[in-house]
Amino acid sequence: MKKYVYFFANGKADGNAKMKDILGGKGAGLAEMTNLGIPVPPGFTISAEVCKYYYDHERTYPEGLKEEVEEALHRLEEVSGKKLGDPKNPLLVSVRSGAAISMPGMMDTVLNLGLNDETVKGLMELTNNERFAYDAYRRFLQMFGDIVMGIDRRKFEKELEDMKDEKGVKLDTELDAGDLKKLVEIFKEIYKKEGKEFPQNPWDQLWEAIDAVFGSWMNERAVTYRKINGIKEDELLGTAVNVVMMVFGNMGEDSGTGVAFTRNPNTGEKKPYGEFLPNAQGEDVVAGIRTPLKLDELKSRLPGVYDQLMDVMQKLERHYRDMQDIEFTVEKGKLYLLQTRSGKRTARAAIKIAVDMVKEGLINKKEAVLRVEPRHVETVLHPTFDPEDKAKAKVIAKGLPASPGAASGKAVFHAKTAEKWAENGEKIILVRPETSPEDVGGMAAAQGILTSRGGMTSHAAVVARGMGKPAVVGAEELLVDDEEKEIRVGNVVVKEGDWISIDGATGEVLLGKVKTIEQQGLSGELAELLSWADEIRRLGVRANADIPRDAKVAREFGAEGIGLCRTEHMFFEKDRIPKMRKMIVARTIEEREKALEDLLPLQKEDFKGLFREMKGYPVTIRLLDPPLHEFLPNEDEQIEVVAKDLGISADELREVVEALHEFNPMLGHRGCRLAITYPEIAVMQTKAIIGAAIELKKEEGIDVEPEIMIPLVGHVNEIKYLKGIIKEVADKMIEESGVDLKYKIGTMIEVPRAAVTADQIAQEAEFFSFGTNDLTQMTFAFSRDDIGKFLPEYLEKKILDHDPFKTIDRDGVGALVRMASEKGKAARPDLKVGVCGEHGGDPDSIEFFNTIPQLDYVSCSPYRVPVARLAAARAQVLQNK
Amino acid sequence: MKKYVYFFANGKADGNAKMKDILGGKGAGLAEMTNLGIPVPPGFTISAEVCKYYYDHERTYPEGLKEEVEEALHRLEEVSGKKLGDPKNPLLVSVRSGAAISMPGMMDTVLNLGLNDETVKGLMELTNNERFAYDAYRRFLQMFGDIVMGIDRRKFEKELEDMKDEKGVKLDTELDAGDLKKLVEIFKEIYKKEGKEFPQNPWDQLWEAIDAVFGSWMNERAVTYRKINGIKEDELLGTAVNVVMMVFGNMGEDSGTGVAFTRNPNTGEKKPYGEFLPNAQGEDVVAGIRTPLKLDELKSRLPGVYDQLMDVMQKLERHYRDMQDIEFTVEKGKLYLLQTRSGKRTARAAIKIAVDMVKEGLINKKEAVLRVEPRHVETVLHPTFDPEDKAKAKVIAKGLPASPGAASGKAVFHAKTAEKWAENGEKIILVRPETSPEDVGGMAAAQGILTSRGGMTSHAAVVARGMGKPAVVGAEELLVDDEEKEIRVGNVVVKEGDWISIDGATGEVLLGKVKTIEQQGLSGELAELLSWADEIRRLGVRANADIPRDAKVAREFGAEGIGLCRTEHMFFEKDRIPKMRKMIVARTIEEREKALEDLLPLQKEDFKGLFREMKGYPVTIRLLDPPLHEFLPNEDEQIEVVAKDLGISADELREVVEALHEFNPMLGHRGCRLAITYPEIAVMQTKAIIGAAIELKKEEGIDVEPEIMIPLVGHVNEIKYLKGIIKEVADKMIEESGVDLKYKIGTMIEVPRAAVTADQIAQEAEFFSFGTNDLTQMTFAFSRDDIGKFLPEYLEKKILDHDPFKTIDRDGVGALVRMASEKGKAARPDLKVGVCGEHGGDPDSIEFFNTIPQLDYVSCSPYRVPVARLAAARAQVLQNK
Repeated sequence: MKKYVYFFANGKADGNAKMKDILGGKGAGLAEMTNLGIPVPPGFTISAEVCKYYYDHERTYPEGLKEEVEEALHRLEEVSGKKLGDPKNPLLVSVRSGAAISMPGMMDTVLNLGLNDETVKGLMELTNNERFAYDAYRRFLQMFGDIVMGIDRRKFEKELEDMKDEKGVKLDTELDAGDLKKLVEIFKEIYKKEGKEFPQNPWDQLWEAIDAVFGSWMNERAVTYRKINGIKEDELLGTAVNVVMMVFGNMGEDSGTGVAFTRNPNTGEKKPYGEFLPNAQGEDVVAGIRTPLKLDELKSRLPGVYDQLMDVMQKLERHYRDMQDIEFTVEKGKLYLLQTRSGKRTARAAIKIAVDMVKEGLINKKEAVLRVEPRHVETVLHPTFDPEDKAKAKVIAKGLPASPGAASGKAVFHAKTAEKWAENGEKIILVRPETSPEDVGGMAAAQGILTSRGGMTSHAAVVARGMGKPAVVGAEELLVDDEEKEIRVGNVVVKEGDWISIDGATGEVLLGKVKTIEQQGLSGELAELLSWADEIRRLGVRANADIPRDAKVAREFGAEGIGLCRTEHMFFEKDRIPKMRKMIVARTIEEREKALEDLLPLQKEDFKGLFREMKGYPVTIRLLDPPLHEFLPNEDEQIEVVAKDLGISADELREVVEALHEFNPMLGHRGCRLAITYPEIAVMQTKAIIGAAIELKKEEGIDVEPEIMIPLVGHVNEIKYLKGIIKEVADKMIEESGVDLKYKIGTMIEVPRAAVTADQIAQEAEFFSFGTNDLTQMTFAFSRDDIGKFLPEYLEKKILDHDPFKTIDRDGVGALVRMASEKGKAARPDLKVGVCGEHGGDPDSIEFFNTIPQLDYVSCSPYRVPVARLAAARAQVLQNK
Repeated sequence: MKKYVYFFANGKADGNAKMKDILGGKGAGLAEMTNLGIPVPPGFTISAEVCKYYYDHERTYPEGLKEEVEEALHRLEEVSGKKLGDPKNPLLVSVRSGAAISMPGMMDTVLNLGLNDETVKGLMELTNNERFAYDAYRRFLQMFGDIVMGIDRRKFEKELEDMKDEKGVKLDTELDAGDLKKLVEIFKEIYKKEGKEFPQNPWDQLWEAIDAVFGSWMNERAVTYRKINGIKEDELLGTAVNVVMMVFGNMGEDSGTGVAFTRNPNTGEKKPYGEFLPNAQGEDVVAGIRTPLKLDELKSRLPGVYDQLMDVMQKLERHYRDMQDIEFTVEKGKLYLLQTRSGKRTARAAIKIAVDMVKEGLINKKEAVLRVEPRHVETVLHPTFDPEDKAKAKVIAKGLPASPGAASGKAVFHAKTAEKWAENGEKIILVRPETSPEDVGGMAAAQGILTSRGGMTSHAAVVARGMGKPAVVGAEELLVDDEEKEIRVGNVVVKEGDWISIDGATGEVLLGKVKTIEQQGLSGELAELLSWADEIRRLGVRANADIPRDAKVAREFGAEGIGLCRTEHMFFEKDRIPKMRKMIVARTIEEREKALEDLLPLQKEDFKGLFREMKGYPVTIRLLDPPLHEFLPNEDEQIEVVAKDLGISADELREVVEALHEFNPMLGHRGCRLAITYPEIAVMQTKAIIGAAIELKKEEGIDVEPEIMIPLVGHVNEIKYLKGIIKEVADKMIEESGVDLKYKIGTMIEVPRAAVTADQIAQEAEFFSFGTNDLTQMTFAFSRDDIGKFLPEYLEKKILDHDPFKTIDRDGVGALVRMASEKGKAARPDLKVGVCGEHGGDPDSIEFFNTIPQLDYVSCSPYRVPVARLAAARAQVLQNK
C-alpha cells in the first residue's frame, strides 16, 4: 500500500529535505531538521499526494489514509507521553498546510487542536495556569470557527473587543482567566447561533481540520495567488498537511516566539538577523501589538537559548548551504524550531550572499550563479523608488514595464518641449501616445518615457532600453491628449509641468514625485559574480549599439561585440536627416547618388567611432532597414517646412509621401527590398563600412572584421544579389587600399520563410542573426504596434501565458529559430549564429536559446548585457544539471 | 569512346524519338521517321552533349568529334552517291540547329552548304539548270555571310534589290541565270569589303557552320527567348546540329515545299490542314511572296505525292499518337519529310483533339487530360478578344492578369457612377486606384475591373475572380486620378466615358473598343474531358462562394462543396452594413448584442440559401475575419452621413474610427481575435449557421453538415477557447431542436505559427483549411496590397521567378503547408485538410498540392473550378508517371 503519512520525532524522520514535492516545504524542513538532531516538536506530515487524490476523487480520501493517520497520531501520543482528548494529559497539535512552493498566508492553519471542555481543564492543571489554558481554548475556538466552520471571524473579534471595552483594558493579555473563560462560553454561543456545532471530540476536530486545510488549496485566495505569481497548478500535487505537537511560547517570560534569518536579508551581511517576542505565540508577532526584541537582546535574556539558536542557525545554513529563514518557539527555556526555508532577500543581498558563500567555500560558482536572479542584476543597475515613499503615492495606471528603472519628472507632451525644458535643468518625463523617430531627441532629454500605446518592442520601448532609461509603454488606461497637453484618467488630470513618476520595472504610473534610490553600478560583488558567469556560460553576449557612446557602455558592461548596429538610427540625427530626405525625394539615380555621397563621410565617421570603441571585437552592421516614409514628415505643417528645406514644393513632397504610403508597412518596402530596388544605398553603406575599417587599420592600427548584415531576407536570391553588389565594392576598395581586411556578409533571419529555407540561405550567408522581434510579428501575425488591442484580453483569458514580444514563444517562434539554426549550420558548418532581437536580453528567452547548440551568442541593449551574462550562465548550469 | 554523332538513312537510324534530349526535337523526329520508313533525306545529328561540352570547355569540341563527323559525312556521301566538294557530283547539305525544346527561328540554319565556285558548275550540269545552280549559290553566300561570318544581312539584300531595280523586275524569280551569276560575284565582293574570306573548301564551310550553330545557342535572341518563355537553361544540354542532304523544292513545277497539320489546329476537326508552294524552297514560304496553295489543291496537281503525303501523315499521327505539324519538300515528284513535331493548337482544338483521340482509341483518358492545358479550359470559358481586332488596338499599359476574360467598356471612375451607367444599359469598365468593399456594387455592374495598384490577391482581384469578371490590377504605369476622372499614361489621357478594353488573361490595357469572342461554356467535349478528369484526380475540388448565386455557379462547374464562405461579404450588402456598423459602435455589450440580434435572421437566411443550393455537399463557413474598421467609412464626408444614420455624432464616429486604426491591419485585430474579444459575434454566427441547418432539415429535409471555420488561428488556445463557446451554443440548439445534426469545427491555417504548431492545433481542430494568401503574406512578410512597390523589380532581377500570390512558393510557403498537413494528420488521423487560398485554383500550385498526400481538396473561385478539376487530374497523372 502507498505511504501517505510521514512521521518525525526524536531525531528520526520518515521524510527528508528532498521530498518537498510530497511533503511540502514545511514538512520537508521539519523532517530534515529532525534528522539533523535539531529540536523540532514531533509530528507527522500527510502527503500532498492525498491532496491530489482528494481533488481527483470528489473530495474523498484514499483507502487506508484513515488508518495511517490514526497510527501516526498514536505514535505521536507515545513520543509525547500525552494523549489526544485525555482530560488529564491532553495532546494538543497544530494542523498546518504546506505546499512545495511557499504561498505565505494563503492557506489555513489551526492551532491548539485537541482542546475541549474537558481537556482544557487538564491543560490548566498540567500547566498550573488557568489563564493560559482558557486563552488557548478561546484561541482554538476562534480559529476553528473561522477556518473549519466558516464562521465570520469578525464575530469572534467583536466579542473580544466588547469584553476588553467592558473591562476597560486595551491588550488581550490584560484579560484574566475569568474573562477568557467567559469568552469561551460566548464563542460557543456564536457557534450555536450560526447553526454549527463545535465538535468536542478531538478526533472529529482533527479530521475536520485536515479537511479544511486540503479544502483551502482551492480557496479563492490561494487560486488567485498562484495565478498572480505564475505558479502552475498542474505542476503541483497540492498541499501537504502537517500535524505537529503544540509547543507554547506564551508560557511566561522564559518562553517566546521569533523569526530569524541566518544573514541580513537586506544587505546580505553575514550576521544573523531577526526578532523575538517573549511570552507570545506566533500569531501575536504577526498581529504586531507589541514591539518584538532584536535578536541580540535575546542573548542577555536567555543566553543559553540564544547560543543554542546561533548554533542551530549555523548548522542549518551549513546544511542547506543557503541563507535560512526560520521560525522558532521557546517553551519554558526550551528551544523548538518550527520551520526553516531559504530566506527571501533583496537584490543586493542576493548578490553579496552568493559571492560570500563561494568565498566561504559553502557553494561553488555555478551554484552562486543560480542563487542570483537576473532581475536582481537589473534592480541593482537601475534606480528604484524608495519603497516607503512609493507606498504613499497614488498609482494611476499600469502599463507595460518596457525599460527598467524608476524616474520622476514634470510631465511634458512634446519632444521639442522636453529638449527645451531639459536645457533649463528641469527633470521631465516625456509623455506621448506613442513615439516616433522624430521624438528621439526629446527621449534623450527626459528622465523617463511614458506612452499610452505600443508593446514591449514598440519604438518607445526599444529606444528607451537602448538608452538605459526607464519607460512604461502601452498604459492604455491613460488618455494622453498631446493637443491639450494633459493626461486624463478617471477623474485625474495631469497637466504639463505636473510631477509624475514611472516605475519601469513594474509598469506603474504614479502621481507626483517619488524619492528614488540610485543605482549601484557594475562593481564589487556584482562584477565578481558576472566574471564567474562569463566562465560558465556557453552563449556569447553582444550588445545592440548604434553609436560610439552606446558601444562604450556596452563594453563597460562586458559585451563581447556588437550584434546589431542599426544604421538608420544614424540618419535620424539632425545633421543627417535633411540629406537622407534629399536622397528619398531624388528623381534620378544621379540625384540620389549625389545625396548618398553627402551621407557617406558622415556614416564612415560613425563606423570609425564604433570600431574604435570596440577595439577589435566583432561589429555587425545592418544595412538600412525601415521603410523610407519613416524619414519623411506626415503632418501638413511639417511637410511645408521640410519641402522648403529640400527646395521642392509642398505638393511634390506630399506626392512622395503618398507614393510611399503602405497599408502594412511592416510587410512592405523595407529591409533588403530597399537595397534591391536602390542598390546605390547598399553601395554607399558598404563604402562607409569598409572605408572606416581600412582607415582605422591604416591610421590607428586597429583590426576590425566588419560583419555586414542584410535585413529582412526571405529568399536566398535576395542575399545572393546583394552579396554580389557588396562584394564587388568591398573587394575593390580592399585591393586598392593594400590593407589586409576580412569581412563577413550575413543576414537577419526575421522572416518565417528565411527560417524555413535556412539551408538555402546559408549557402550565401556567412552568419545568421535572428531578429526575433520581427520573426515574432510574422510568425504570430501580430503587429507589435497594434497588439495592445487584444493582448491584455489574450493574457487574461489565458490564451497566451506571456507577451511573446517580451519572452520568446518556444513552440512557434522558438521552433523556427531552432529549425533555422540546425538547417543553417548543417549547410555551412562555420556559420556564426546569434540572436539580436529584444529577446536576446530576456532571461527566460536566453534559457531557451541556450538549448539550441548551434546558437553562438545573444545580443541585447547595452544596459541588459549584465543581465544576459548572468542569464546565459544560469541557463548553462540548469541545462547541465 | 562516347558517341556524339547519330546517323540516319535508308530506313535505319542510330537514334529515335525518345532521344530528344541529345538529338533535339528535329534530330529525334528525323531519326524516328527514318526508322518508320518514311522518306527523309539522309543525314546525321551531332548530339546536344557536344553543345554542353562546347560551353563547358571554352568553345572547344570533345576529342574524337572531328573523326566522328568526318566518318558520318563519308557515310552520307556513300548513301547519296555524291561527294562533298566534288565538282562533278557535289553533295550539298543543310546545317540546322534543334534543341529538345522548340525555339522557332531563334537559332541558326545554313542551307546549300557545299557550294563553291567549282561545285556550282557541277550542280548546274547535274540539274541542267544554270539559274537554279546560281540561285542556290547566291542563297548560300547570303546565308553563310549573315550567319557564319556575321556580315549584316541587309548588305546582301540591298544588292539583290538594286539588281531587281536595275532589271526593272519585282520578284527574285524574275532574275535570270546571268543576273544571279553577277550577284554571286557582287556577294563575294561584300565578303572582301568586310575583310572576311569566303571559304571555298566545303569542309571548312561545314565546320564553320557547325561552330555558328552551336554559337547561336547563346546568342542574345535565344537567351532572351528562353528567359521570356521560362525555359530553364540548366535543364537543357544545348542544341544539337543536324547535317542533312539538301533536297530542292525549287526544281520545277513537279517540285515544291509545304507545311501541314494532321488535323485542323484551329478547330480540332479531324482533317489534314496545310499549304503547299510549288517550285519553291522553305524560306520562300516564310517570305510570303507568293500565296501558297491549300493542301487540297495538291491533290489535283500531284495526286501521287498527295496520296503518299496523306499516308505519311496518318502514319505519323498514329505513331506519335498526337496531331503532327510537318514540313515537307517535293523534289521532282519525290516526297521528302524534313520535320515532324506535335502541332501547336488553339484551346478549342486541344480539347476536341484530345477527346476525339480517346474515342478513336489512339490515347487513353489520362493522356487526354495531359494534352489539354489548364489555360485552354480558362480560355474557352471566358470571352477573348478577336485577335485581328486586338492587333489593331493600342496597348497603353500592362498590369497583372488578375481575372481571365476580355472586356470593353466606357471608363468609369466611381462605383456609384458605374452602377448608375450600367442601369442605363451602358457597358462600363470600372477604373480605380484600388477597390475596397464599398466598390463591390460597382464591380458587379461593370464588364471588367481595372486598378493601378494591388496584387494578384488584392481586393479587386479576389472579388473579380469570385464574380468571374475580367480584371487587370496593379497597372502601375497608369495614373488613375479619380478626382479628375481620368487615366493619364505618357501623353494618353482616358476620360470618363472613353472606351477602353482589358485582357484579363494577359494583363493588357487597350485603348478603345475591341471585338470579343464569346465564351463557349462548359458543355460538349469539355464537359466530357472534365468528367474523365474527375475519374482520375485524387484531390477534391470545392469552390469559394459566399452567396447562393455563386454556389449555383460552383455546382454547375462541378464543385464538390464550398471550401470557403466568407461571412463578412454578407455584411457589406446595403441592408446589412448599417446593422453591422451599429454593432461596431455599440458602447455596451447589450447594445452590441441587440445589433447582432438584428443581423441574425438575415445571416441565417443567407446560410439557408447556400445550404439549399449545395444539396448536402459540405459547406465550410468562416467566422467574421476582417478588421472592423473595414466596415466604417474613412472620409470625412461619409463619416457625417453614416454618423447621422447611426444616431451618433460625427465626432463620436470619428473617435471609433480612430480607435480602430492600426499601423498594420493585416497583423492586427481581426480573425479569431475579434471573436475572442467579442465572443457575442461568434455566438450570433453559430446561431445563424446551426439554426439554418436545423430549419432546412426540418422544413425541406435537406441534410447539411456545416463546417464552422475559425480564421487566423495561431495558437491552439485560440481555437480551444472559441470551440468551447461555439459548441455550447450549437449543442444546446441541436438538443432543443430534436434534429440529428452533425457539424465540424476547424480552422484556417494561415499564420506561420499555426503551421509550425499544427500538431497542437489538430488536437482541437476537426479540419484544416490552408489560407495560402495570408500564409504567403506572413511567410514572406509581403503585404499583398503593397507588393507592387518591389515585385516587378524582383521578377525582373530574377530574385523571384514568379508572383508567390499567384503560384505557391514551394520551398517556403509550400514547405509549411506540407509540414502542417503531416503534423496535423499525424495528430488526428481523420483530420480533413484543404486549401482555400487563391492558389487552390492555380494549376502549378495544384500540381504541388497533389504531392502532399494528407491534402484532401482544393477550393477556388467558382469560375476556376473546371480549371482546377483538370489541373488536379493532370497532377495526379504526372505524379504517377
